[in-house]
Amino acid sequence: MCDICVMTAVKDRMLSRRDLFRGGLAVGAAGLTAGAMAKPAMADAHGSVYDLTHTYGPDFPTFFGVPGITTEQAYKFESDGFNLFNLSINEHTGTHIDAPLHFSADGKSVDEIEVGNLVVPLCVVDIRERSAFDADAQLTPDDLTAWIEANGDIPDRACVAMLSGWGDKVAEPSYRGQDDAGGLHFPGFHPEATAMLLEMTSAAAIAVDTLPLDHGASADFATHYAWLPAGRYGIENLAGLEQVPAAGATLIVGAPKHAGGSGGPARVFAMG
Amino acid sequence: MCDICVMTAVKDRMLSRRDLFRGGLAVGAAGLTAGAMAKPAMADAHGSVYDLTHTYGPDFPTFFGVPGITTEQAYKFESDGFNLFNLSINEHTGTHIDAPLHFSADGKSVDEIEVGNLVVPLCVVDIRERSAFDADAQLTPDDLTAWIEANGDIPDRACVAMLSGWGDKVAEPSYRGQDDAGGLHFPGFHPEATAMLLEMTSAAAIAVDTLPLDHGASADFATHYAWLPAGRYGIENLAGLEQVPAAGATLIVGAPKHAGGSGGPARVFAMG
Repeated sequence: MCDICVMTAVKDRMLSRRDLFRGGLAVGAAGLTAGAMAKPAMADAHGSVYDLTHTYGPDFPTFFGVPGITTEQAYKFESDGFNLFNLSINEHTGTHIDAPLHFSADGKSVDEIEVGNLVVPLCVVDIRERSAFDADAQLTPDDLTAWIEANGDIPDRACVAMLSGWGDKVAEPSYRGQDDAGGLHFPGFHPEATAMLLEMTSAAAIAVDTLPLDHGASADFATHYAWLPAGRYGIENLAGLEQVPAAGATLIVGAPKHAGGSGGPARVFAMG
Repeated sequence: MCDICVMTAVKDRMLSRRDLFRGGLAVGAAGLTAGAMAKPAMADAHGSVYDLTHTYGPDFPTFFGVPGITTEQAYKFESDGFNLFNLSINEHTGTHIDAPLHFSADGKSVDEIEVGNLVVPLCVVDIRERSAFDADAQLTPDDLTAWIEANGDIPDRACVAMLSGWGDKVAEPSYRGQDDAGGLHFPGFHPEATAMLLEMTSAAAIAVDTLPLDHGASADFATHYAWLPAGRYGIENLAGLEQVPAAGATLIVGAPKHAGGSGGPARVFAMG
């Protein structure tokens, strides 16, 4: 079928089938047009599969406070016979990857992360006892030591994830925690914990259920600058971590694979 | 840390660390700027994990023959202290999902596909004996019957994938197979095979290693119009299917999760 005939054929087909769909509502499209943000995605379990990914739209909170995705409907079912959107996306939006290239001159881009580092043991470090009362809480070496005492050594190529409870807050201002002076307040990895993981483990990734790897009050992005140039990667804005066991699950990181990217929205599952 | 201070802090940090990175090459960024398309990704196995996802850039072949992704570097490590790209993406680019909404008025959008339908048994139907000599070959009911005779019934919620050998051709004009009259030529699902799967199985998805679910010579997108409005979904442009067993593997579909989308680039793995 020739390129130039495609649209005509689809429209013809559409006309012949219109009665079948009459009365249907373009639910998804309407949601997208309205910039609706779905309710924060809690772990959606089927058997032992957990979805750790937030649904995201223009209203999903971002570090800089501006929409991370905008959409334009290029083709519409009612008139064209099919729906198709063009997306404009800031790579670091929604549940997403920080590739080494994000904070280094020549680190691996997101498409270059080894597949063996995308299917890895998951270690969930729960700091909710502190973060519930302190938005500036950080995951510290003591938290890592406590996890190891309870669960054994951190496995090779693991992903070490901070559970702060922020995954429940994406629809609330407290997710960014912006104060009157413009400062941000949410938990993150303390640089000393990051150093400990770099020195003592082969962990492939660290992950957070907050906006960035560093806590909101960080003055220097010390965790980003230590972790990513070391050739390891990060995951930000995880959802539903509270439903996953502290140890024993496998994380499957559906990182995007556009050439040369510094990161990008990902689909992340846990199995176990 | 206040929003307004972020860039200053990052730049300061950058200046203090510049010597560490002097001489480094922004390999990934350069690749992106040049619109380089990585070599077609064959299955990248680590243990029993296979990557069925093509790396993609502006040169990756698309149905309409125009770039499906363009990128703009919004922040650059050398001057800003970090790399970040803004992406403009046609949802139906690279290894990607067709959600029911793509060819229906009110079908499920890509973020609404159940997690239980994203981790499913994989059935690989090999039609290379015919497609090697016929770019217009289609996967037929006879191919499905032969697969069932060899491997048993198609499992519940399976993904049935066509292996045509086109995954090796993404850097060649033959991937689109455009003839002098503008017609396209590549394999796809015959509408009768699609009808058989709809009637006789609970398959969640069909997948192809070519551009669309219908073969290039299709005049009416009959497979799209039968399969997607039935609430099932598709996967297009799979890579590396030839390395996966015909039966017994599990497909993990890292579908994107932007609200209301008709589909989008996905990371797809097979395990088994």
